[in-house]
Amino acid sequence: MRLNIHRKGGQIGEKLERITSTGNKFIKEVRELEKKSRARRDSGLFIAEGERLCSEIPAEEIVRVFVTSDYKGRLPKGMVTDKDGHAAGTRSGKVPVFEVSSQVMEYMSDTKTSQGILAVVRQKHYSALSGDFFIILDTLQDPGNMGTVFRTAEAAGVDGIVMNRNCVDIYSPKVVRATMGAMFRMPFLICDDLSAEILRMKRHGVSVFAAHLKGNKNHWEFDYTGPTAFMIGNEGNGLSDEIASLADSYLRIPMKGETESLNAAVAATVLMYEAVRQRA
Amino acid sequence: MRLNIHRKGGQIGEKLERITSTGNKFIKEVRELEKKSRARRDSGLFIAEGERLCSEIPAEEIVRVFVTSDYKGRLPKGMVTDKDGHAAGTRSGKVPVFEVSSQVMEYMSDTKTSQGILAVVRQKHYSALSGDFFIILDTLQDPGNMGTVFRTAEAAGVDGIVMNRNCVDIYSPKVVRATMGAMFRMPFLICDDLSAEILRMKRHGVSVFAAHLKGNKNHWEFDYTGPTAFMIGNEGNGLSDEIASLADSYLRIPMKGETESLNAAVAATVLMYEAVRQRA
Repeated sequence: MRLNIHRKGGQIGEKLERITSTGNKFIKEVRELEKKSRARRDSGLFIAEGERLCSEIPAEEIVRVFVTSDYKGRLPKGMVTDKDGHAAGTRSGKVPVFEVSSQVMEYMSDTKTSQGILAVVRQKHYSALSGDFFIILDTLQDPGNMGTVFRTAEAAGVDGIVMNRNCVDIYSPKVVRATMGAMFRMPFLICDDLSAEILRMKRHGVSVFAAHLKGNKNHWEFDYTGPTAFMIGNEGNGLSDEIASLADSYLRIPMKGETESLNAAVAATVLMYEAVRQRA
Repeated sequence: MRLNIHRKGGQIGEKLERITSTGNKFIKEVRELEKKSRARRDSGLFIAEGERLCSEIPAEEIVRVFVTSDYKGRLPKGMVTDKDGHAAGTRSGKVPVFEVSSQVMEYMSDTKTSQGILAVVRQKHYSALSGDFFIILDTLQDPGNMGTVFRTAEAAGVDGIVMNRNCVDIYSPKVVRATMGAMFRMPFLICDDLSAEILRMKRHGVSVFAAHLKGNKNHWEFDYTGPTAFMIGNEGNGLSDEIASLADSYLRIPMKGETESLNAAVAATVLMYEAVRQRA
């Protein structure tokens, strides 16, 4: 297969490197990055897989891309195809593209059915968040919930998400998939000391609200038109006492029936969209 | 193990029947009911597994219960334990309880780690729904979304859920788990002809709302204090044209960023809780 490609910053017209062995070092790296949070942390890299997700990666965050020879779907931003519609590098020429056999792609894939494209992506580290609408996550553990919070937060116009290190790894394959691309656009901070970050927000005039058993006013009875942050706690245990004690106000989301609690992402949705309503 | 039990409607004091073979007909039945929607439909039965879920099954819907010999958690409503705290039938004496070896329980379990209790449950069929707050589901496919909609609907005070046959099977193990017991309390109708059911609701004065691209008013600009139904569509394709055409009003849930759509359960949450707010 001869393509008009840029490989490792190389020249147009080079032959697309083809990987047919699962023993290849780049393939091994992908598996490590999928399986081990330690590998992701040490390297500052993670894996994004599938057409939709890969198409939303900002060009400057892509390290390398793997495609099967028959892949003709959407490519990461800034990537170009050859005349046959195959993946073929980027305009800036800085992203190496590898063609892999379908067996190698299946081996690399974290999903049952690979979509034929997978990328190694550079983690983006924000030093601080700005804006007036935030979500604070305390030990959120479920990958689906984390993804849904990111996706819903983007839709609701949230400016940033702060979380402690006990939250599920945002860079794990399941979370990356569940965010459906929102993680590439939503600023977030993973804090060694979440309390310190919350105190910093409060000093900057942000009002912090927590859904809590102590709350005796309904969630719509508070004013979210000023700088606002909502705390969301762990699926089983809710907010830790330490974090909850930092809230300015406790609210309650009314519940009928025998429901003991709402799903964490559902509770976050209720609060975010009440803020959307008030801010409109 | 001698227990004060009722077995197959039998006498107190009978020996608890112990199953140690995965070839046992009752164990085979459990696996069939877990795996095949056809088996569930033909028999009118389904499987509920785990302490929390089993503790919420209404007594009259239990067909039989399986426990491991060391199970000491919560039991289905109306079931009693012997002096050692083991599962031991019901007060009315109509539910057979089987003790199974931990190997057999692992074999029966649909989850990675069994909690030591599993029940065969009778499906409850509602002939009609009553009330003034409904959810209409058109081809909702994701088990987690279905479960979340049930759980959130109960919390929001929804009176009933109607859905078409193309929705994910409510009695599949994943959905049963995801409802966290709400399916035992929330009335629902699975309709061969969803359009006919919607038309019936409308004749009874229910206003039907759909989140739709055609909507040009925000979701909070409508009045949900009267009899109200919200339509929720398929995860990938939204509402079918046929169902959407039956809505009285199209609304839009405002979205920022590059989000193309909200998760179906998230959209349902936004609408249900706006109705909760208006009705308070």
